[in-house]
Amino acid sequence: MTKSALQVARAAYKPKMPKALYGSVRVEEGAATQSVADQDEVKKLFPNTYGMPILKFVESAEKANFPAMNVGVILSGGQAPGGHNVIAGIFDGIKSLNKDSKVYGFLMGPGGLVDHKYQELTSEIIDEYRNTGGFDIIGSGRTKLETKEQFDKGLEILKKLDIKALVIIGGDDSNTNACVLAEYYAAINAGVQVVGCPKTIDGDLKNEMIETSFGFDTACKVYSEVIGNIERDCNSARKYWHFIKLMGRSASHIALECALQTQPNFCIISEEVEAKNQSLDDIVTEIATAVANRAANGNNFGTVLIPEGLIEFIPAMKALIAELNDFLAHHQDEFNAVAKDEKRQYIIKNLSAVNAAIYESLPEGVARQLTLDRDPHGNVQVSLIETEKLLAEMVGNKLAEWKKAGKYSGKFASQVHFFGYEGRCAAPSNYDADYCYSLGYTASAIIAAGKTGYMSSVRNTTAPADQWIAGGVPVTMMMNMERRHGEMKPVIQKALVKLDGAPFKFFAANREKWAVGTEYVYPGPIQYFGPTEVCDQPTITLKLELGK
Amino acid sequence: MTKSALQVARAAYKPKMPKALYGSVRVEEGAATQSVADQDEVKKLFPNTYGMPILKFVESAEKANFPAMNVGVILSGGQAPGGHNVIAGIFDGIKSLNKDSKVYGFLMGPGGLVDHKYQELTSEIIDEYRNTGGFDIIGSGRTKLETKEQFDKGLEILKKLDIKALVIIGGDDSNTNACVLAEYYAAINAGVQVVGCPKTIDGDLKNEMIETSFGFDTACKVYSEVIGNIERDCNSARKYWHFIKLMGRSASHIALECALQTQPNFCIISEEVEAKNQSLDDIVTEIATAVANRAANGNNFGTVLIPEGLIEFIPAMKALIAELNDFLAHHQDEFNAVAKDEKRQYIIKNLSAVNAAIYESLPEGVARQLTLDRDPHGNVQVSLIETEKLLAEMVGNKLAEWKKAGKYSGKFASQVHFFGYEGRCAAPSNYDADYCYSLGYTASAIIAAGKTGYMSSVRNTTAPADQWIAGGVPVTMMMNMERRHGEMKPVIQKALVKLDGAPFKFFAANREKWAVGTEYVYPGPIQYFGPTEVCDQPTITLKLELGK
Repeated sequence: MTKSALQVARAAYKPKMPKALYGSVRVEEGAATQSVADQDEVKKLFPNTYGMPILKFVESAEKANFPAMNVGVILSGGQAPGGHNVIAGIFDGIKSLNKDSKVYGFLMGPGGLVDHKYQELTSEIIDEYRNTGGFDIIGSGRTKLETKEQFDKGLEILKKLDIKALVIIGGDDSNTNACVLAEYYAAINAGVQVVGCPKTIDGDLKNEMIETSFGFDTACKVYSEVIGNIERDCNSARKYWHFIKLMGRSASHIALECALQTQPNFCIISEEVEAKNQSLDDIVTEIATAVANRAANGNNFGTVLIPEGLIEFIPAMKALIAELNDFLAHHQDEFNAVAKDEKRQYIIKNLSAVNAAIYESLPEGVARQLTLDRDPHGNVQVSLIETEKLLAEMVGNKLAEWKKAGKYSGKFASQVHFFGYEGRCAAPSNYDADYCYSLGYTASAIIAAGKTGYMSSVRNTTAPADQWIAGGVPVTMMMNMERRHGEMKPVIQKALVKLDGAPFKFFAANREKWAVGTEYVYPGPIQYFGPTEVCDQPTITLKLELGK
Repeated sequence: MTKSALQVARAAYKPKMPKALYGSVRVEEGAATQSVADQDEVKKLFPNTYGMPILKFVESAEKANFPAMNVGVILSGGQAPGGHNVIAGIFDGIKSLNKDSKVYGFLMGPGGLVDHKYQELTSEIIDEYRNTGGFDIIGSGRTKLETKEQFDKGLEILKKLDIKALVIIGGDDSNTNACVLAEYYAAINAGVQVVGCPKTIDGDLKNEMIETSFGFDTACKVYSEVIGNIERDCNSARKYWHFIKLMGRSASHIALECALQTQPNFCIISEEVEAKNQSLDDIVTEIATAVANRAANGNNFGTVLIPEGLIEFIPAMKALIAELNDFLAHHQDEFNAVAKDEKRQYIIKNLSAVNAAIYESLPEGVARQLTLDRDPHGNVQVSLIETEKLLAEMVGNKLAEWKKAGKYSGKFASQVHFFGYEGRCAAPSNYDADYCYSLGYTASAIIAAGKTGYMSSVRNTTAPADQWIAGGVPVTMMMNMERRHGEMKPVIQKALVKLDGAPFKFFAANREKWAVGTEYVYPGPIQYFGPTEVCDQPTITLKLELGK
């Protein structure tokens, strides 16, 4: 691997940790816990891992004698900056307890456990990956660990490698599955602990005990860097509206954090769209109004942030897509036989009046996409819809109407962007480098304490790292029952943007000013070596949430 | 303006300069110069500014007494990182000669001179913009200064503001026009000097005396940051081919530099495509072959870099577009009357056999775009063609054919990206911050020396800044005669990628290894505060060109 100068310099960085973790630790156990909802059902499903106490690790003078043990680690799902540091933290933590302990990585995600693909992670390998982005140390994958067969197959290799604890680094679903696995291994006395680590750039795995999922900080900073650069370009050229879509399908945390960092003229928050029952036309009208207001001041330029998952949060679009899926499932052959030029009319004719009207209002490309690109289950692939182009085009059409009607006299030209892959594998910011390493090190402490079904928890992270609090949270505590594929399942509650939360309220209180004014902020690229006020800041979301 | 923490910290940066510029300077004049070609014609057109010597500024013990004078400055064309530092350098240079001198900025580009829109740039304003990206201090624009009327109109306001020298910061065309203006003002004894500064992220304004245009370094570093992040994602997820288009229409310097920095699996260099007379199908076949070769090793992922201007460098596409433009110019009504579904066949029927075959091979979207999106002159708007999607789709089709024929058995899925606006207004790297400030400071020295028709030149920039060489180059020296809009015009020779130059040769010598292996390099974001090997490096292109 040829290393860049930055990688070489950055390899020497020593991640900061909670003070307690530097020496021997003692576990403080809290009171018994409850799941966030559906207590009876969750308790019944997790007889061995329900109700466990919250753990806190505090300094201890006592030097424990810890036997050598082998630990397995899995990276699950989409990449997030800092995954390598979680693994380095686990490695250093386990080795600090007993230098003969070993860490094995399962390859290409949970599938590696089932298929018995693994690699021992030696100190030589770990040192190559400290403070780097990516999940390439062992790869990741999207196989879901859900069935007894998978669990048993996994246990075979765990036994063979004498692995006593498995750390699964993943998002809400992966951690839910980690807990199911923990429960199963506990029930059959398999002698394997399972511990989770909260990962996802989307930021939707968080709660009272998990302040943030790792990677969110770095990814948002990369996106904010390029958004800021585009804003500065926008404000220099003064001739384009930039429509910028940001990754994050199930929640708008990324869009919101980037808006807080860069103060664009407009930012859509999907959760608000849903709560207000807004239509696509409502959103288009709002943006067009912002464009017209700026044009009235001579400013024919601006920036709009769009969360990737928007379409699925628009109640009317959701209804249209549902009807389309249902109709085409039963009339696919008939639809295929219709002449290309007549397909659109055919669809309009066959939909209910409400959905037909919405379908008719869509630009041709999107309308076509809604009938063509279907997944193996016959559903529209919403992620393929270029929402940023859709909105730019519809706003342009709306403004053209207004111009004809004499209500608008500006110029409108647009550029579109989509940022996602640019941020998922960036080298972790100091925050994520520290947070991830601490999460991994804490996971090793949970393992040493003999616990299973816990998620590694590091809190108070808006304070300097030595004041961070390391502990463990029973995963069952975060669960409720939700309908998935027609069945009620125990799952970790997904954290959406709260419209009564401090980050959204701050945004809502400022957005009108940002819309009319040009109050862009240019955060610039992540800095690893500079002054602390530049290099060591958590997200604005977190600062507002924790009231800092 | 709300400032980010980085902006605040970065404001304190003191750009480094050639040692000679810190005190009083003396001008060393070289021998008379010649234009690079067409000497007689160029000489005839520039009787007052042809043949002037190259200037070099060296340290001097003598403290010159320089009268207060007013200087005007114009930002011309697309944004490039460091423009604000050029202006800061001019300001500090002029003020160091006489603190009562003033700098005026003309607003929104050359149009500001003609329309008499200007602003005095005070030290308070300058200080707000030091080391920042963007051209927003006075804005930029694309008005071309070409006519006597414009020159005379400009002179009115220059006289009114008592401006004795004008600095035009722009690309090859803007500097050509600056020289025409210098010649005109010299011819009519207007008493206004004109000096140019070499700007463009595209990197195509360079020659023996101008090592690089400013902004190229920073823009390439921003693009390389996100390309590196995508590569790391690509190598972690191992399931996508990423097709990444990079800004730069008339030359492939950006794509080449980014390839040198990130070592992707494939990078197209337009100049090579033209030299080899490659067809679109040749390029698609080459990429598909790289995909198939990697698939044979189990690697169904990769990255491809594409220069924005590619289409116009493919001789066969150029011919097709020319015939299409010509045909549609004469048959637009007839074409409009053809039913939508039959338009493609109509075009195919009416083109020459060679072009019809190429047209037929194009994916539907691009084929349609070639007949629809036309500029006011009736020409295809090549910049609207999404080459990255076109290539991804055609490579996919080619691989599907090969799969049917049993020649390929991998999986192919693609993601597309286009980076341009993300890099044009980034905060300048240390290199660009220093280089731009030095260019501006040098421009003030050229002004103090009473010269006109010169471009500010700072050389030896792969060495530490104190060893840089400041001077001035007669713009006429870079000129030759070229046909523009049917007329022979004196213009600065555009610097394309040289296929016998060191940067391309290094790329060519390594690309096969990079194609099969996964030798990605992850440069990470621009660092402003870290170790010098991370923060103070010029482009790889420049190091190779200068043999460093």
